Amino acid sequence: MLFRVNGADGALIVPPPVPAGDDRDVSLDVWGFRDTRFTILPNGSATLTGARYGLSGLELPHLLPWMRSMLGVPIAADDTHPPTYPPAVPPPIENAQFLCALRALLPADAISTEPLARLRRGHGHTLEAMYAIKYGTIARVPDLVVEPGAVEEVTALVTLAVQHDVCLVPYGGGTNVTDALRCPADERRMIVSVDLRRMDRILWIDPVNQMACIQAGAVGRHIREQLATYGFTMGHEPDSVEFSTLGGWIATHASGMKKNRYGNIEDLVLDMHVITPKGTLERPTALPRESVGIDPRRWIFGSEGTLGIITHAVVKLFALPELERYDAIAFPTFERGFAFLQDLTREGPVPASVRLVDNLQFQFSQMLKPGASGLAAMKRRAERLFITRVKGFDPAQMVACTLVHEGSRAQVAAEETVVRRLAARHGGFRAGAENGKKGYELTFGIAYFRDFIMKHHILGESFETSVSWSGALELCSRVKARLAEEFAARKLPGKPFITCRVTQLYQTGVAVYFYFGFYHKGVDRPDAVYAELEHAARDEILKSGGSLSHHHGIGKVRRDFLPRVFSPASLEWAEAMKRAIDPTNTFGIGNQ
Amino acid sequence: MLFRVNGADGALIVPPPVPAGDDRDVSLDVWGFRDTRFTILPNGSATLTGARYGLSGLELPHLLPWMRSMLGVPIAADDTHPPTYPPAVPPPIENAQFLCALRALLPADAISTEPLARLRRGHGHTLEAMYAIKYGTIARVPDLVVEPGAVEEVTALVTLAVQHDVCLVPYGGGTNVTDALRCPADERRMIVSVDLRRMDRILWIDPVNQMACIQAGAVGRHIREQLATYGFTMGHEPDSVEFSTLGGWIATHASGMKKNRYGNIEDLVLDMHVITPKGTLERPTALPRESVGIDPRRWIFGSEGTLGIITHAVVKLFALPELERYDAIAFPTFERGFAFLQDLTREGPVPASVRLVDNLQFQFSQMLKPGASGLAAMKRRAERLFITRVKGFDPAQMVACTLVHEGSRAQVAAEETVVRRLAARHGGFRAGAENGKKGYELTFGIAYFRDFIMKHHILGESFETSVSWSGALELCSRVKARLAEEFAARKLPGKPFITCRVTQLYQTGVAVYFYFGFYHKGVDRPDAVYAELEHAARDEILKSGGSLSHHHGIGKVRRDFLPRVFSPASLEWAEAMKRAIDPTNTFGIGNQ
Repeated sequence: MLFRVNGADGALIVPPPVPAGDDRDVSLDVWGFRDTRFTILPNGSATLTGARYGLSGLELPHLLPWMRSMLGVPIAADDTHPPTYPPAVPPPIENAQFLCALRALLPADAISTEPLARLRRGHGHTLEAMYAIKYGTIARVPDLVVEPGAVEEVTALVTLAVQHDVCLVPYGGGTNVTDALRCPADERRMIVSVDLRRMDRILWIDPVNQMACIQAGAVGRHIREQLATYGFTMGHEPDSVEFSTLGGWIATHASGMKKNRYGNIEDLVLDMHVITPKGTLERPTALPRESVGIDPRRWIFGSEGTLGIITHAVVKLFALPELERYDAIAFPTFERGFAFLQDLTREGPVPASVRLVDNLQFQFSQMLKPGASGLAAMKRRAERLFITRVKGFDPAQMVACTLVHEGSRAQVAAEETVVRRLAARHGGFRAGAENGKKGYELTFGIAYFRDFIMKHHILGESFETSVSWSGALELCSRVKARLAEEFAARKLPGKPFITCRVTQLYQTGVAVYFYFGFYHKGVDRPDAVYAELEHAARDEILKSGGSLSHHHGIGKVRRDFLPRVFSPASLEWAEAMKRAIDPTNTFGIGNQ
Repeated sequence: MLFRVNGADGALIVPPPVPAGDDRDVSLDVWGFRDTRFTILPNGSATLTGARYGLSGLELPHLLPWMRSMLGVPIAADDTHPPTYPPAVPPPIENAQFLCALRALLPADAISTEPLARLRRGHGHTLEAMYAIKYGTIARVPDLVVEPGAVEEVTALVTLAVQHDVCLVPYGGGTNVTDALRCPADERRMIVSVDLRRMDRILWIDPVNQMACIQAGAVGRHIREQLATYGFTMGHEPDSVEFSTLGGWIATHASGMKKNRYGNIEDLVLDMHVITPKGTLERPTALPRESVGIDPRRWIFGSEGTLGIITHAVVKLFALPELERYDAIAFPTFERGFAFLQDLTREGPVPASVRLVDNLQFQFSQMLKPGASGLAAMKRRAERLFITRVKGFDPAQMVACTLVHEGSRAQVAAEETVVRRLAARHGGFRAGAENGKKGYELTFGIAYFRDFIMKHHILGESFETSVSWSGALELCSRVKARLAEEFAARKLPGKPFITCRVTQLYQTGVAVYFYFGFYHKGVDRPDAVYAELEHAARDEILKSGGSLSHHHGIGKVRRDFLPRVFSPASLEWAEAMKRAIDPTNTFGIGNQ
């Protein structure tokens, strides 16, 4: 059941359980850890509380003034939109017979009807959902939360659910941005959230074959930490890695920022164990590569909780790299930075991670620096002068590329040689490892920004796509223009915040992230306005030859667009396959 | 319908059609080109006729004596088992209404009832099938061969087949080794082979985004040649690349020998167009990577002709490498060579292709060298003395690893540095680029060997698996021992020929090829004996933690083993999915 490893049984490492309890440090009503949030200091500087991130504890004097000017609106410490979290949680629908049978199956502390626990499992992290729990209402949430601790319990749970006509919703980290956890408002069956937090162990590490068998509820940060103590990494680092789980990565068909070195989730997962209403997908041995006909394992990637519960999977491991090195290169324009990316992909080797932010995001990152004085201020001024006067970069045009190198000394050296040669070819200016590192550290700190600005009447969120090299620049401009148009047409206050960055490089194209924000004081139903604008942006993305999603998936946010990317026949096949595996629609969360 | 390329339309290259007719050079009754076959010269040397391969035209004086001694049997030029090809071809079952409708759809020359054409499309290249057409009978072959020339014709054909209850079998290169083309003997419907040879074009090359849209009937050797004229390669080189097709690669979930650099077929194919009884899988744009939920494209890999007809696909392209360099390293034992492979995988970068042959295969490759005289003979003797006397290698133990480096000068240099360092670590002795090149060239020439020895009462064939690093050596010995036991238990004449090589390296394990042969003069139904022994070997492979197949697939040869590698539930799902896409079992070839 837990996969066999031939010839290596004696050599398997069984790591201890993850110390329990640190999930209590995670917020229910906003992104991230409870000790970390953006706030405005009495002197008007912004700051990120706590001590977890590079950004934490810094006074950021430039951020608010810059935001005011970018958005053309007032933002004051005392002008807040106070959240009304928690909203009223609908009373649970109860299936008495199921509950009775369930109590015989699971210990009492693995079953909860607690309203906040139910609420949290009824949403992910779309802007709409977060706005709803803080300022609106939520129509339907799970009626019960259960926490099975073993494969046998999951199997029995699924059997019970089918028997008693109960709806099951697998729950991992709750970080999806597709409304994948939103319960269908018209679901009259009892909805049971199956939280996999108790199935969070690395069951074994096989150091010889560089594989590990990991339970689906294992959280990214714990997987990273634990594997590292044995000298390994999975190398999978989505931006949500602190909170998302292995099961969630598989179910959303996730991508990690270092995929150039380690691959995306489909490259990393060798095998998986999945329990469905029509039996279990289980395999005797996890093998390097197979050609075994029509292979149901491949159906589980992107299944978004609609087919069954992933209980554990075998993944590839990599030795921790000898070296991890950051770099940052400034380019005079987005176009030149983009040309650099293209040459880098063609000429390689490509570093583990490469990103290119546009000018607005570059400016934004500059505003996330503390005020400098004395020598530091002089140095910064000197740098700025050098870039603008000597190199002739226009501060309103220049962009930055950040890179992460991982590998042996020789590999990193080879990558750096290529990067330097190509950066010079495209007028790039090396801004140093420190800036590169800061750029990457921002990824995790900045995730707290959305909930901060939401309190100040600003709705902002990201969305992503993938697109061919030749279509990418035009897609970026068209999406930005469309958002500006839609913003203007609605006569919304101030100016929109629209920016993008290239986050992944592929042989045939790139992944692009957009960020869009607007000030909404006085606007009716701003969450609906945001949804409309994101929808318009997605329409423009598809018209421009972009994908429906590079790595977030479909859920409910993008399912209306599916007929534009798949022919009717193939959507029907997917439905038929769903009916074959889950004829009772036990996994009735309704994604896709 | 043929995929849209955004922003690149102007830049698309549309290559001319492949010059017609060179498929007439391909044999019907044996592997390969008609001008190439092994034969015995009056002086007792073996030789490969024609001029296509490195091996062609050489006099090989050592081969037959070595075979006699290895197999412990007489092999004489005049002691042949003369083939009776062609066997009687069963008369066609005709569906008159379908035929009438078909004649309105396709030109007359795209429809054939010719017995040899039908026969050829009723088998692939398993030993059993080749023995059957030469020495036995074949119970059922397609009743008709059609050659649609366009997507519209394929669509109409599938519609007609459903309407008139006809069975369709897609046909590419006919090189499968899984009995995937063997028609079910009890199929009473008319069976129509859909030969995709007229859909063999590269529809467009997108040099900017490094993609090409290629029709499914395009043959590997033509794809290679044509892409190379534009400076590109797909990099996919299965051993059958001369004859197999893009559609066949997808349908069998194929692997290429240079997968370390280019990936396997699932890494290379971005998108595909598939026509099934329940509609068409078609996509608007081929994108670098997507997360779009349950994705029916992934079902087509390994579908083995059971779901529909792949008409064309978009694949990744790579610039032709700056450098291609071969290498060969001799190791004192298989175990030491294997340890070298493992370190190479861990420490990387790994060359495009790396193979390790065992001692018997190493000896075999030495016997495929021409007789030497004068200086050449002295050089060879000196080399042998150096290896055995100075290096202390045992000729009955030593093995060889052959490598192909592809890439930029810097990449190849980096690979070579690592290879040399690790070869030294494991007692390896560099045998030179020339030997490496010869080793790879043998791949294609040696494919003709099976039909040669078959004429001399020897049945020999290969089969493959994948297995974890720690299980590989034991698997190799156990499979060899099992074959030896099974051979002995049957009291077959002479000695068995049993050898293996490692052909692919993965993070977590390797792919292994076995070759097994035996002399069968006086043995009843030797084809059935071979099948039994291969079956026993597969049983041993599975017991040793190996896969059912690394890249050949299931077909009919291995379908009995499927319940040992997939749980009952997942096999039922695959069946249900088949019913959803092909409820009339129009694609009724019965694989898996």
